[in-house]
Amino acid sequence: MIKKSFSFSSSTVNYYFNADFNYLEQLVSKDNAVIVTDENVFAKHQKKFKGWKSIIIKAGEQHKVQATVDDIIQQLIDVGADRNTTLVGVGGGVITDITGYVAGIYMRGIAFGFVPTSILAMVDAAIGGKNGIDVGLYKNMVGLIKQPAFLLYDFSLLKSLPKEEWVNGFAEVIKHACIKDAPMFNMLEENKLDYFQKDPENLAKLIQRNALLKTKVVVTDEFENGDRKLLNFGHTIGHAVENLYKIPHGHAVSIGMGVACKFSEEITGFKDTARVVNVLKQYGLPPQFEFDKEETFRILKSDKKKSNQSINYVLLNKIGKATIVPLPFEQIHALINNL
Amino acid sequence: MIKKSFSFSSSTVNYYFNADFNYLEQLVSKDNAVIVTDENVFAKHQKKFKGWKSIIIKAGEQHKVQATVDDIIQQLIDVGADRNTTLVGVGGGVITDITGYVAGIYMRGIAFGFVPTSILAMVDAAIGGKNGIDVGLYKNMVGLIKQPAFLLYDFSLLKSLPKEEWVNGFAEVIKHACIKDAPMFNMLEENKLDYFQKDPENLAKLIQRNALLKTKVVVTDEFENGDRKLLNFGHTIGHAVENLYKIPHGHAVSIGMGVACKFSEEITGFKDTARVVNVLKQYGLPPQFEFDKEETFRILKSDKKKSNQSINYVLLNKIGKATIVPLPFEQIHALINNL
Repeated sequence: MIKKSFSFSSSTVNYYFNADFNYLEQLVSKDNAVIVTDENVFAKHQKKFKGWKSIIIKAGEQHKVQATVDDIIQQLIDVGADRNTTLVGVGGGVITDITGYVAGIYMRGIAFGFVPTSILAMVDAAIGGKNGIDVGLYKNMVGLIKQPAFLLYDFSLLKSLPKEEWVNGFAEVIKHACIKDAPMFNMLEENKLDYFQKDPENLAKLIQRNALLKTKVVVTDEFENGDRKLLNFGHTIGHAVENLYKIPHGHAVSIGMGVACKFSEEITGFKDTARVVNVLKQYGLPPQFEFDKEETFRILKSDKKKSNQSINYVLLNKIGKATIVPLPFEQIHALINNL
Repeated sequence: MIKKSFSFSSSTVNYYFNADFNYLEQLVSKDNAVIVTDENVFAKHQKKFKGWKSIIIKAGEQHKVQATVDDIIQQLIDVGADRNTTLVGVGGGVITDITGYVAGIYMRGIAFGFVPTSILAMVDAAIGGKNGIDVGLYKNMVGLIKQPAFLLYDFSLLKSLPKEEWVNGFAEVIKHACIKDAPMFNMLEENKLDYFQKDPENLAKLIQRNALLKTKVVVTDEFENGDRKLLNFGHTIGHAVENLYKIPHGHAVSIGMGVACKFSEEITGFKDTARVVNVLKQYGLPPQFEFDKEETFRILKSDKKKSNQSINYVLLNKIGKATIVPLPFEQIHALINNL
């Protein structure tokens, strides 16, 4: 097991890589903890939950909504959770988002930690304290930035991860490579998904590299005034098409990255769209998608990243180097119509 | 106008005493602000809201619930509120609680300020950043601690305050005197409500004294690890009976203070219950109430101040000096039954 600690504005987050799920008992006592998980994760790992108070919600992004929050809060009241209780989110990005949010508002905030069970959650969603729920078609419209107390990485949980979830997770890995890590991009170009699926050691290294890459960005810019915005690469169009077409997050981000590369060609003179598109395809991701341009643009106009009449758009200068450019709505409209 | 600034953990709060409502335009631009108010306040001060985008909710504690939050968020989306928007809560404690909460979670947090319109909000609810909503019978079960950017005190707004709201507000004034300010307690003993109602200058002084008293407590203990807990005097039984019997907050706190004085006699040897009871009556507040002891005790067991099998109870040593005593549930049960 490798332990690493990072200090955020108001708390320290402990990471436990290569840990075993059972190590959770060293971090929180069963008496003072409540696990939040989904029905799929619970069904797959039922034995691990023995002896833990658990709240089991329905699986899927469509349940990352207020009704589920209401349900979890009622169950917390029913089991007598108080200010000494720690919530532990065991699952993918939906679980970490919703668990962090509920912990942030229950009794004005209780402690929480995560055991991410998907690649996407391990390299992205569980890290950095952003949490929240969707409102109608708007992704993460409501939420908080609040850090977990701990992240426990048990890579053996990935054994039962469905193929499409591997693909989803690699969208964020490729995103990290595009914005911050050209050597990792080259390495991803040289391999394929099954290389990592078949080699637990290299997979563990890749996940840790990505988890630490994201952590370093958010630890220096927790409240997204600067560098953290780069992590939104692919997420502007991505979030719009994700809820509109109910497609997986990784697919949506992949489509969003494809679009952002095209925008970058126009605006920064970016030249490597083809390489990005090829890597996305290589890992089973769709770089293109026929979306309703007007409807997508309408949703974009309510994006959280908007500021008056423009959106802070993440573009690439080159592989491994991203930049923020405020694009006026009209220009985005024209760029979308030119796709 | 008197301006005072206080630095909290992650922001500075500016207080504007003796200000005029119209000074709001100096603090936020009409283009970038959305007011949240209730139908009563809006009806009384309709002219003041001219030119401001306003969300008007139903008045009353029974609307301090998630459904109202959902409604406000939908309206914010509809008017295009973004991260540069400032929410301004204009109203009593329900409005400041719900506005602070919505601002804390909308797009993961936007700026907010308050124009308190009741004595209770001016001396208590608007100060210190605690916000939230009720869940079933549980008061403020969900919420945050997050500071407003500003508080604008226009004392002329109190002219139209109904009598029962004056009485409500004085419950918190008497609370402050009991726990922290013996000279103010003596002064309250020597006067009656109509003295303050008829003398705007002394009223303004009293409100400012109370606002600053509370501010000094919360600025040194923002997250309620110590001294801030004293402000819960009267609020343990108070919150339980408030929602159970749908009585006004001030009445509930008054009843709670009466009970806490009785508990104090037993535990700290407090000797001035009669003085507290008399002051409460003098300002039109009920120090006693026939509540269902078992049902109240059941609600107490889910109080946020509970910690395992006890509640951190605020008791008085003497007028002007309070203390926290962890009381086991059984002892509270016995004390309630002896009332």
